[in-house]
Amino acid sequence: MAAKLVVLYGPPQDPDAFDAHYTETHAPLAEKVPGLRRFDHGHVLRNADGSPAPYYYMAELYFDDADALASSLGSSEGQAAGADVANFATGGATLMIAEA
Amino acid sequence: MAAKLVVLYGPPQDPDAFDAHYTETHAPLAEKVPGLRRFDHGHVLRNADGSPAPYYYMAELYFDDADALASSLGSSEGQAAGADVANFATGGATLMIAEA
Repeated sequence: MAAKLVVLYGPPQDPDAFDAHYTETHAPLAEKVPGLRRFDHGHVLRNADGSPAPYYYMAELYFDDADALASSLGSSEGQAAGADVANFATGGATLMIAEA
Repeated sequence: MAAKLVVLYGPPQDPDAFDAHYTETHAPLAEKVPGLRRFDHGHVLRNADGSPAPYYYMAELYFDDADALASSLGSSEGQAAGADVANFATGGATLMIAEA
């Protein structure tokens, strides 16, 4: 079964700085991880009831299966992308593995 | 811009009952909402660091844009699917609107 890494970013201290770092630095690092089949990412706008959402941004990285995902995260490219999260995710980040 | 409804389900009291209700009742209701372009759903397995994930299941419903999403949620089919969430989401559900 295909698997994905889901990343949920909490509201950052400086949204403009978050966006700039994500676009210019983090997304290019994420796109380099081996075995990546699809990479979706974008802003969370609000909760469906109109209240503020608990997350500001979310990303999903799709792989052929859980083994490919684990191998990718452990690669040098995966480690570089993971290490970069601390550089901009001032509102925290929840990284989960899910069925896809 | 395309938009999606992201639903994050907290760990339910009875995972088997959740799964049965989701597959047999909720997914068929969700598939009926107007304007739905893609419907992805599956279990969250764990956090990337191996710790328990804060969510048990997640779903994403894709629409052409935010207006189509809002219209769909407000339709009779959308209302029926939304009302059904209370029937099985014993661990709570976070419904968010995001860029897609």
